[in-house]
Amino acid sequence: MKKNAFYAQSGGVTAVINATASSLILETRKHKNKIGKLYAGKNGILGALKEDLIDTSKESIANIKSLKYRAGGVFGSCRFKLKDLESDERQYKRLIDVFKAHNIGYFFYNGGNDSADTALKVSKISKDLGYDLTCIAIPKTVDNDLVITDSCPGFGSAAKYIATSTLEGSLDVQSMSETSTKVFILEVMGRHAGWMAASSILAKRKNQNAPHIILLPEVTFNQKNFLAEVKKKVSSDGYCVVVVSEGVRNSRGKFLAEINTKDAFGHTQLGGVAPFIANLITSKLKYKNHWAVADYLQRSARHLASKTDFDHAQAVGIHAVKYALKGMNGTMPVIKRLAGRKYKWAVEPAPVSKIANHEKKLPKSYISKMVLVLQKKV
Amino acid sequence: MKKNAFYAQSGGVTAVINATASSLILETRKHKNKIGKLYAGKNGILGALKEDLIDTSKESIANIKSLKYRAGGVFGSCRFKLKDLESDERQYKRLIDVFKAHNIGYFFYNGGNDSADTALKVSKISKDLGYDLTCIAIPKTVDNDLVITDSCPGFGSAAKYIATSTLEGSLDVQSMSETSTKVFILEVMGRHAGWMAASSILAKRKNQNAPHIILLPEVTFNQKNFLAEVKKKVSSDGYCVVVVSEGVRNSRGKFLAEINTKDAFGHTQLGGVAPFIANLITSKLKYKNHWAVADYLQRSARHLASKTDFDHAQAVGIHAVKYALKGMNGTMPVIKRLAGRKYKWAVEPAPVSKIANHEKKLPKSYISKMVLVLQKKV
Repeated sequence: MKKNAFYAQSGGVTAVINATASSLILETRKHKNKIGKLYAGKNGILGALKEDLIDTSKESIANIKSLKYRAGGVFGSCRFKLKDLESDERQYKRLIDVFKAHNIGYFFYNGGNDSADTALKVSKISKDLGYDLTCIAIPKTVDNDLVITDSCPGFGSAAKYIATSTLEGSLDVQSMSETSTKVFILEVMGRHAGWMAASSILAKRKNQNAPHIILLPEVTFNQKNFLAEVKKKVSSDGYCVVVVSEGVRNSRGKFLAEINTKDAFGHTQLGGVAPFIANLITSKLKYKNHWAVADYLQRSARHLASKTDFDHAQAVGIHAVKYALKGMNGTMPVIKRLAGRKYKWAVEPAPVSKIANHEKKLPKSYISKMVLVLQKKV
Repeated sequence: MKKNAFYAQSGGVTAVINATASSLILETRKHKNKIGKLYAGKNGILGALKEDLIDTSKESIANIKSLKYRAGGVFGSCRFKLKDLESDERQYKRLIDVFKAHNIGYFFYNGGNDSADTALKVSKISKDLGYDLTCIAIPKTVDNDLVITDSCPGFGSAAKYIATSTLEGSLDVQSMSETSTKVFILEVMGRHAGWMAASSILAKRKNQNAPHIILLPEVTFNQKNFLAEVKKKVSSDGYCVVVVSEGVRNSRGKFLAEINTKDAFGHTQLGGVAPFIANLITSKLKYKNHWAVADYLQRSARHLASKTDFDHAQAVGIHAVKYALKGMNGTMPVIKRLAGRKYKWAVEPAPVSKIANHEKKLPKSYISKMVLVLQKKV
């Protein structure tokens, strides 16, 4: 019997998540004999739980194609982690009720680490609760922290944004450093993994040392060594560019961004890590400095999307449908890097069970190459 | 007798300042019978005072042409304001000594408000100190606060960056607002004039209200009204996007960004205005929020340069040379908007004396149109 399909976006958006949605929808339309309607969840999986489904079959091919180029998450997303089947069976029964009501046999879940965990749980419904469902997880995260896949759709575009911004900011501070700002600090995302901060090294030019210092969540912050390094770079180059990950912690394991400060009324204030670093430099080294916090801009920057990332995002959407049609429940299409000096890639299936609840941090070998991180290793 | 020329960049960079430099250099090469070498000041006017001159005649045409597309300020810039002739005649004599030594008869000064003031002073050397010099000021500022000119080269690109970032950030927070972040705050430059913050309104889409609130330096911040408006927007739209200018002040005339906070060690800390607003929203409304600070990224974003801005930047460079050759000492080429619905423009000369020490703020008529600024007018 022909079944309908359900697609949901999860977690933070990327510059290319809608490219995945678009190619997935277009691919399902090529298999009308096997897949009926494709419903998208309004605000992610909440759309299923609340029975708030968007019938994409009502949209023209031209509309669906144009989705590829749209920023944000067109159907809405959410942060919502399903509990274990044992601890909240009610939630799964609700999901099955909605799926039954709409004859849904395919579930596509497009997200990062938390979503892989949810997809893994949903993939067991079939066996544990007897409802016939093929669940496919589709990778998406600017954090680039999913295991097995060579890279995560969304990351390439964020990396391009960060490298471009680091380069432009570096050229700015360099131009002014003789009489004005000496240090420029750029805060980027990455709570646990330093992939995004590390991507700023792509801004490095011949005969230029910026970015001079990259602070990673994988490496404990050492204030004394850091300040000495900033001083050294300002002395040698006239300026210093620091890229800092939001996830950097001190030796007590505390996020620098969460070191409490009090405002004028005595309220506790959470600052970002960039102003924390800026304040250190102002108070200890007396260098004039500027700081930027990229925040959402780095992950939603559709205008700077990477072509390769865009191609990855579309390919995983298409393969998700292919795997679903083969009944490969509990699978994720991942990017495999092919051998050779020139960058070549393919999509292959990987079991979600091997991906959920793992985290790919920046390998130590990458950190030593990036140098200039004069800190104690964790 | 054939004279050489001196060109200097001043103040903060823009995405298109090198386009002005490039077209100016190329234009001087068309008049080799009248203009000899074009020297650029290393780090702006400091290059003249320190006799640190870059001989651009050594560069190939291809190199000079490629400058047009380069970010930063290629010759270096500075923040350095010449004093009055009466109070520091020594500095002017030094300038004349260096100009004499290098046979410089044309002085091109590429900058914003402070630079117009310096250019005005230098333009009087000829009359007051008897050294024959033709001084041309060339407009450049992301602040868009020079009078007479319809817009300032550099502003269009910054405005495009801000509008693009506001739109992308708005689509991001909108996607997530059901379960996560409700408010996104973007801090932009503009110490005294709100042109940059106002340009975020270009991100407004049909049937969408973001950006919901724009806080301008021209309007006193009213905390109670602001918070009420944020609450209203979150209730009606599910999310709220706030664009805030770094120059916003409270009713006591104090910059919000400079309201002192103490860090954990009791040191005074200067935060940005975005974290200040974020903290207000967290503590008073308990909405989850995200904030970004664009800082240097907005003015150095060559990758998002506006084509019109790029054309303006080149045109003022070319006209600067034309005016110099006509001996129009103390002149600035400005952008004149031509009549008609379609955007058309031309370059015309304006006296620097009418531009220096004036500041073009956002007109009141623009502010009422931008709405949603529920605040007492200054």
